[in-house]
Amino acid sequence: MVRYLDAGVRLDAAEAISAHAAGRLGRALFGGFVSVPALCTYRSPVLVASMDGIGTKVRLAAHLDRLEGLGQDIVHHCVNDIAVHGAQPLLFLDYLAFHTLVPATAMRLIDSIAAACRTLGIELAGGETAEMPQVYSPGEFDVAGAIVGVAEEEAVVDGRTISSGDRLIGLAAVGPHTNGFSLLQTVFGPDDYDRTDLLPGQSLGDALLAPHRCYLHEIEALLAGGSVHGLAHITGGGIAGNLARIVPAGLVAEVSLPSMPALYRLLAARGVPGDELYRVFNLGIGLIAVCAAGSVAAGWVPLGFVRPAEAGDEGRVMLHDCD
Amino acid sequence: MVRYLDAGVRLDAAEAISAHAAGRLGRALFGGFVSVPALCTYRSPVLVASMDGIGTKVRLAAHLDRLEGLGQDIVHHCVNDIAVHGAQPLLFLDYLAFHTLVPATAMRLIDSIAAACRTLGIELAGGETAEMPQVYSPGEFDVAGAIVGVAEEEAVVDGRTISSGDRLIGLAAVGPHTNGFSLLQTVFGPDDYDRTDLLPGQSLGDALLAPHRCYLHEIEALLAGGSVHGLAHITGGGIAGNLARIVPAGLVAEVSLPSMPALYRLLAARGVPGDELYRVFNLGIGLIAVCAAGSVAAGWVPLGFVRPAEAGDEGRVMLHDCD
Repeated sequence: MVRYLDAGVRLDAAEAISAHAAGRLGRALFGGFVSVPALCTYRSPVLVASMDGIGTKVRLAAHLDRLEGLGQDIVHHCVNDIAVHGAQPLLFLDYLAFHTLVPATAMRLIDSIAAACRTLGIELAGGETAEMPQVYSPGEFDVAGAIVGVAEEEAVVDGRTISSGDRLIGLAAVGPHTNGFSLLQTVFGPDDYDRTDLLPGQSLGDALLAPHRCYLHEIEALLAGGSVHGLAHITGGGIAGNLARIVPAGLVAEVSLPSMPALYRLLAARGVPGDELYRVFNLGIGLIAVCAAGSVAAGWVPLGFVRPAEAGDEGRVMLHDCD
Repeated sequence: MVRYLDAGVRLDAAEAISAHAAGRLGRALFGGFVSVPALCTYRSPVLVASMDGIGTKVRLAAHLDRLEGLGQDIVHHCVNDIAVHGAQPLLFLDYLAFHTLVPATAMRLIDSIAAACRTLGIELAGGETAEMPQVYSPGEFDVAGAIVGVAEEEAVVDGRTISSGDRLIGLAAVGPHTNGFSLLQTVFGPDDYDRTDLLPGQSLGDALLAPHRCYLHEIEALLAGGSVHGLAHITGGGIAGNLARIVPAGLVAEVSLPSMPALYRLLAARGVPGDELYRVFNLGIGLIAVCAAGSVAAGWVPLGFVRPAEAGDEGRVMLHDCD
């Protein structure tokens, strides 16, 4: 006799998770429903959507048994990715995949995702939880998410109005957010995470697992003030890689970095070369706005300006280190 | 010196995939845009969303180097999940995650997903491609997707109008679609897939890898005829598990199964018990509609009826085998 269990897949565990998720969703149909009567008030609605994962931050969180921040990590990462286009988030969907489905773990993840959605008024419209012992390594799991929001077409922010003389301003990150964790877990080992002598004022584990900051409300306030020409969410690819996505051809963003946070100085001391730090991490800046000159909003850090491109420029973003 | 490569992650490969995907998407911003002026014509629009994976069908497709059907698998699976609620699909997002990112493989997957979306007029709004050697087993990868569609609130189909005397009708599946592949790959081995003597008229590999059938147009036609009270997409959980999702309390769906397809008779002969077959596979029926009595649409197979629940009924679906 050959049962599904012989393939390492426990149908009963999957059904328990479905029931738990259905409780969070309020139903267990094939798709999730989100009533959006407000869409009728848009003259020309544009749906803005994004899919993302949080990489191997899940491994560190699992190792330290601190899963509760992962909901904010995946939800905030996704929210920021559409908020930078001026979209209001409407709904979120999660994808959880396990080597071995541990119901308690899946429920903690689903609860943390549901809580992060609820705080922001976003509908958790559905999700999928899979168990694939042949695909995942023993003990491992993956977390991904999809988000959909809406913007008025004429209010979409995509960088096309960026022009010479614009100012760059930024908001701080609260740690590496959700990028660079494979590298971080190569540099650091199990004995490092509880140490409080590596970084000022907190353990290394606390610094690394600080949830991805949500910039939705700061972006809304900035947009309400007008004159925002572009917004870049600084994730994998770093400041240059992400800011370059919105700077139009013929222009260069000159970025003067504030002092590098202690975590990245520690990484440099542990042998990570500077170019790799710049390419992988946010270096303490989680969001950059490009605004008309003169309009530096309170709470934002001035980071530089936009100028015309010149012969010899390499790329659309020039980074200057202030250290 | 410690680089990201030491963690097994190749940033250059990831950037090549991003560029390829951006070509498919027409841009490389943080979120994807889908203009939906038609939303303004809805009196009370409801977004219907779903997230799904295609499980270990990807392993078999990779083993046989036949990745081109996987785009239809994930897109059609997702489309069906919202079409059964009467929604028109608007946008799709993909998630690809690899142990080792093979750019050629990722590009074949993205191209097949883009083609499946294009055929159905769905916008491929974005995606994420991740490389996580610590999370995935060597050589493995995973494919998931999210879909969002729209329905007029009063036209949402969710089973609540199902009543005693309704008729059940079904549409054929073209194979196991995207469910049961961990079990299938436990029962069958590498020597079986090319065999043409196991099933009538096709190799076992062809039978298993046939892409998930899309029921969107059949559902649209049925809904245009009126009197549809509920629709169930038959995926993991089988006929009983999925039909039960839409049958209201106090009612029982009596399903008389047509002759079991040869694949499932073969699985039974190889030792898979009947209850497991019924719980895991579609058994040749990929979609079931519950309609007002008398309205059996052309091309659909009659499957049974709905009656009031009685004392002693176990569950909301009773399956009867005609073999």
